[in-house]
Amino acid sequence: MAVRSHTARRRVVQVDGDRVRQRDDVLAVEEPMEIRLCLDGSRFVSVAVTMRTPGHDFELAAGFLFTEGILTDPGQIEAIAYCGEGPGPRRLRSPEERYNIVNVYVRDGVAVDLERLQRHFYTTSSCGICGKASLEAVRALGVKPIDDEARVTPAVLAVLGDRLRAAQAVFERTGGLHGAAWFDTEGNLMALREDVGRHNAVDKLIGHAFLNRQLPLRNAILMVSGRASFEIVQKGAVAGVPIIAAISAPSSLACDAAAQFGITLVGFLRGPRFNVYTEPRRVLV
Amino acid sequence: MAVRSHTARRRVVQVDGDRVRQRDDVLAVEEPMEIRLCLDGSRFVSVAVTMRTPGHDFELAAGFLFTEGILTDPGQIEAIAYCGEGPGPRRLRSPEERYNIVNVYVRDGVAVDLERLQRHFYTTSSCGICGKASLEAVRALGVKPIDDEARVTPAVLAVLGDRLRAAQAVFERTGGLHGAAWFDTEGNLMALREDVGRHNAVDKLIGHAFLNRQLPLRNAILMVSGRASFEIVQKGAVAGVPIIAAISAPSSLACDAAAQFGITLVGFLRGPRFNVYTEPRRVLV
Repeated sequence: MAVRSHTARRRVVQVDGDRVRQRDDVLAVEEPMEIRLCLDGSRFVSVAVTMRTPGHDFELAAGFLFTEGILTDPGQIEAIAYCGEGPGPRRLRSPEERYNIVNVYVRDGVAVDLERLQRHFYTTSSCGICGKASLEAVRALGVKPIDDEARVTPAVLAVLGDRLRAAQAVFERTGGLHGAAWFDTEGNLMALREDVGRHNAVDKLIGHAFLNRQLPLRNAILMVSGRASFEIVQKGAVAGVPIIAAISAPSSLACDAAAQFGITLVGFLRGPRFNVYTEPRRVLV
Repeated sequence: MAVRSHTARRRVVQVDGDRVRQRDDVLAVEEPMEIRLCLDGSRFVSVAVTMRTPGHDFELAAGFLFTEGILTDPGQIEAIAYCGEGPGPRRLRSPEERYNIVNVYVRDGVAVDLERLQRHFYTTSSCGICGKASLEAVRALGVKPIDDEARVTPAVLAVLGDRLRAAQAVFERTGGLHGAAWFDTEGNLMALREDVGRHNAVDKLIGHAFLNRQLPLRNAILMVSGRASFEIVQKGAVAGVPIIAAISAPSSLACDAAAQFGITLVGFLRGPRFNVYTEPRRVLV
């Protein structure tokens, strides 16, 4: 069983007050994985695509099918294999694509109640499923590299975390909400939205600007209270945001998406210390 | 425009070393919201259901449709309304259901490319969409209240956070991964899985136990490194876990699901200090 790495190295600019240095940073890999059921030895049904970190992929497929109520007993499973490595027809695929598709072969005679599935069936695209295809899908939306020449100073970035937390403290009393904020490059808070789901907080924020005809968000910083996933950068790219900042780590695919769309991605933003993963030209050090 | 509260009160048992007291805790509300497009003034298409915190629901709907590439200009929108409050046919719904469905009315003549949608269309269930229906859906999977009489001491709970962090430090070097661990009630680490997605980490962990025929997980504690959402508790309920512990806050619906399925839910677990949201009988104070 081949396993893909769960970490990836990226060259970053690390800023700590007046100290600036280049170094390698280790990021968690984020890649799409498709889970397929093989029924009656021949019929493949795609049941889910999830953005995951490679590793324990077969457990992920089995756990998903079990917790969604599709499978109830491990004895219902004949085999689990990466695409092209199990029984059945083979198609040539790149390693990247192959290890992002897991086929779960169900024993003959096992009745699978696909109606149980609360998520939705997915029609496999011919381009396969991999990080590159995910970036391609965003480009297919008509999203172009961002040419906004916004600039931000480390001094402004250093205060954003405190300003986000202070603003969130006004709105929430629960400690359980993700925050997404829109700052201008002077560090002024333009809007803040919160949600139990990080992607929802970002959708609310961008929806606000969309309905008010404020897009693309020029000279803007999109700030999130937690980590930066591919989905966050994708949404920022669609909204034309030049700078995205996260309190915690970005994923590998978030960095790739930021590079692809010319977005400056700042991570681990803790006061005067932070990493710039892509397009450091917008950070005036 | 009626808005539902984004916070909910729950009675909790707060433990701090030897001090135990009952108090009210304020939690972030988590409820499903369905986004529907109304095309040609009459055709309703359900495009997504997302677990969200109520508030700015119209922005959430608009932002989702924009960042997914379905709508490109606010001028394409005729109106946004909660179900039953906009134009078109009305059906009687409970307030809970009504404010969890947002209809986006698209202007006549606007071409909407539904193929753009990378997520999947959802067939509306007749039971409407609300927290109660979400709990009902889990029960419909055949999940029964958990009768496991596991017991855990505050001393064991107090060390789980450090043990989880120590175990994660061995596996990851990125600071960007969610951890899900299975401990026995003596505090021994049985398994640990990590992922950029919290639900994936839990699926890997449960998939591991499922494939090894270790379910239901008796005398077990499912520990997550961040917050506890409805989805986490749902997966734990399917796996028969008696105790779920989270470093951060649970959502309102996570508490409701834990109560429904007889799971002891511990939140804000920071050393000797933590809250017990449901079924405190399993915590020996």
